Amino acid sequence: MKKELSACHEAIKPYIHKTPILESKHIENFLGSDLYFKCENFQRAGAFKIRGATNAVLKLSEEQKRKGVVTHSSGNFAQALALACCSVNVKCYIVMPDDAPLVKRNAVIVYGGEIINCAPNLESRERVCKQVIDKTGATFIHPSNDINVIVGQSTAAKEFLEAEPELDVLITPIGGGGLIAGTALAAKHFGKKEIEVYGGEPFEADDAYRSLENGKIESNRTTDTIADGLRTQLGDINFPIIQQGVKAIIRVRENEIISAMRLIWERMKIIVEPSSAVALALLIKERPVFEDKKVGIILSGGNVDLDNLPFY
Amino acid sequence: MKKELSACHEAIKPYIHKTPILESKHIENFLGSDLYFKCENFQRAGAFKIRGATNAVLKLSEEQKRKGVVTHSSGNFAQALALACCSVNVKCYIVMPDDAPLVKRNAVIVYGGEIINCAPNLESRERVCKQVIDKTGATFIHPSNDINVIVGQSTAAKEFLEAEPELDVLITPIGGGGLIAGTALAAKHFGKKEIEVYGGEPFEADDAYRSLENGKIESNRTTDTIADGLRTQLGDINFPIIQQGVKAIIRVRENEIISAMRLIWERMKIIVEPSSAVALALLIKERPVFEDKKVGIILSGGNVDLDNLPFY
Repeated sequence: MKKELSACHEAIKPYIHKTPILESKHIENFLGSDLYFKCENFQRAGAFKIRGATNAVLKLSEEQKRKGVVTHSSGNFAQALALACCSVNVKCYIVMPDDAPLVKRNAVIVYGGEIINCAPNLESRERVCKQVIDKTGATFIHPSNDINVIVGQSTAAKEFLEAEPELDVLITPIGGGGLIAGTALAAKHFGKKEIEVYGGEPFEADDAYRSLENGKIESNRTTDTIADGLRTQLGDINFPIIQQGVKAIIRVRENEIISAMRLIWERMKIIVEPSSAVALALLIKERPVFEDKKVGIILSGGNVDLDNLPFY
Repeated sequence: MKKELSACHEAIKPYIHKTPILESKHIENFLGSDLYFKCENFQRAGAFKIRGATNAVLKLSEEQKRKGVVTHSSGNFAQALALACCSVNVKCYIVMPDDAPLVKRNAVIVYGGEIINCAPNLESRERVCKQVIDKTGATFIHPSNDINVIVGQSTAAKEFLEAEPELDVLITPIGGGGLIAGTALAAKHFGKKEIEVYGGEPFEADDAYRSLENGKIESNRTTDTIADGLRTQLGDINFPIIQQGVKAIIRVRENEIISAMRLIWERMKIIVEPSSAVALALLIKERPVFEDKKVGIILSGGNVDLDNLPFY
C-alpha cells in the first residue's frame, strides 16, 4: 500500500496545491502542545477533496474517461470532482438536490460540470444517479467510500508527515470517512511508529463514533450540525481502515465547534469552515491527552457562506 | 538610506515574522495582472505596525528605554507598540479614548501596556499625552509621522522585493502615511529602476489624495469610512517622502472596499481588515493601468471584529 500512496501522490501532484503548514504561538500556549495546521482550506476548490477526486479520475480507463463520471453531492466533493474532470478533460455529471444553494451550483458550473436535479431525498438521488449511468455509461464515483478517493485523500497527511515527520498525533474531522481513512493509511506508512490518529465528530452526526463503539456501521440519528461537511455516513470500504488505524473518535458540541472556528479565524487570520474547526475543538476539549505532544491538525476546508456566519 | 533600511531590517528581524507571499489564480485571471500579496495580516499583533514600532523602540537610548514610551492610538499601532515594548522590556503607556472598544483595550493589556484614558477628542488626547510625558519622562512615539517608524515599515516592502525583485508596481493603503512612505523608500533602494508605488485611499478620508494634488498637507473632511485604519492624517515627515516616491493615489468608494475585502476572504481564505482591501479595490477600479504588469499588494492587517462584519 505504501507504494500505491506514493504513486498516487506523484500522479496527482500536477493537479493539486502543496498546501502550507501554519503555526500559532497563541493557540499553542493556550493548549500546551506543539501544534501544526495543514491548510487544506488553501487547496484548489477550497478543500482537500480535490486530492481524492483527482486520483479517482486518473484511475479511470480510457473507455471510462470517454463516458465521464457521475456523483451525488451538494458539497465540496461536487466542486472538486468537476474541477478534477475539467483538468483532464472528462465529462462530469453532478446529481444535486433542486434546493441546493445557488452558490454551490455555480461552483460546479464554472468548472464545466453538468448538474442533474433530483428531489432532496436519498431515494430520488440514487434513482437519478442510476438514470444518468444508464443513459451515459458514466462511472459512479462515491465522495468518500471509494478506495481511489481514500488513497487520494491520504496525500494530505503524507505531505504533512514529509514536512513534520516527528508528529505524535494527527487529527482530522470525520464525515463520510474518506479523509480520516486516508490519514490512517498515511500515518501507518509515513509516520513514526507510535503515531496516533484521532477523529473529531459532532455529537449531532456521530455515526462514526457509534460505529467504532459497536463494531458495525451505524447511521446518523440526526444531522443537525453546523459542520455541514460532516453530515454524511461512513461506508464499508473506509470503515475497516478506520477500525484498524484510528485510536479514538471524540465528539464535540456545536458551541465548541463555533468557538474553535472563531479562535482560528481571530488568531490565525485564516478562513476555515466549521467542519475543519471540529479537529481543534476536540483538542481543546481533551487538552490533557495531547499536552506536550507534537500534534498535527488537518484543516479540511475553507468554504463558508459569508452571508451566514455563526458568530452573532 | 539604503544602509539604514538594511540595518533596521537586521535589527528588528528577531521580533517580527517574515510574512508569507500568497497568490490567487482566480483574482489574477479576473484582473489580467501577475499578482502577489504580502500577508502582513499574518504579522505579529495582526498588522505591519509591529515593524515600525519595534524599530522606534530599539532606537531609544538606554536612558529613554528606562523611562518608557507613550503614544495615542486606539488601533493597530497601540497593540504593536505594547508588544514591541514587551519584547524588549520597556514600559509602554497608551493614551486611549475612554470609549475605545474593550477588545482593543484588552489587546494592549495582554502585552503589558498601561492604558491612560482620555476623552474622545484631539485636545484631550494631546493634553493627556503631555501629562504622561511630564510625569514619567516617557518618549512620545508617533504611529506614522516618525522616521524610525517609517524606516521600520519599509521592511515589509523590502522583504517583498527580496522575494519578488521584478515587481513593476507596489500598492499599499494610505492612512497616516507610514506604510506607504516606507514602501516608497524600499522601492527606491531595493526595487527595479522602473518600479512604481501607488496608494489607495477611501474617498471618505482622502487627505493624502488632496495633499498630493495641492502640494501641501490637507486635512480629512470626513473620516466616515469602514477602513478604520485609514482615518488618520499625513504628517510633515512622511509627506515629502510620499511626494517624491509615490506615483499616484487612487480613491475608492466604501462599496468597492467591501467587495474587494469579500473577494480576498472568499477566494484566498484569509482574513484581512477593510484597510487592507483598499489596495485591491484600487487595482480592480483601475484595472487597465495594471494589466500585464507584475503587481505586489501589501495586505496591511487582519484585525477585524467578527461580531461586526460588513457582508450583510
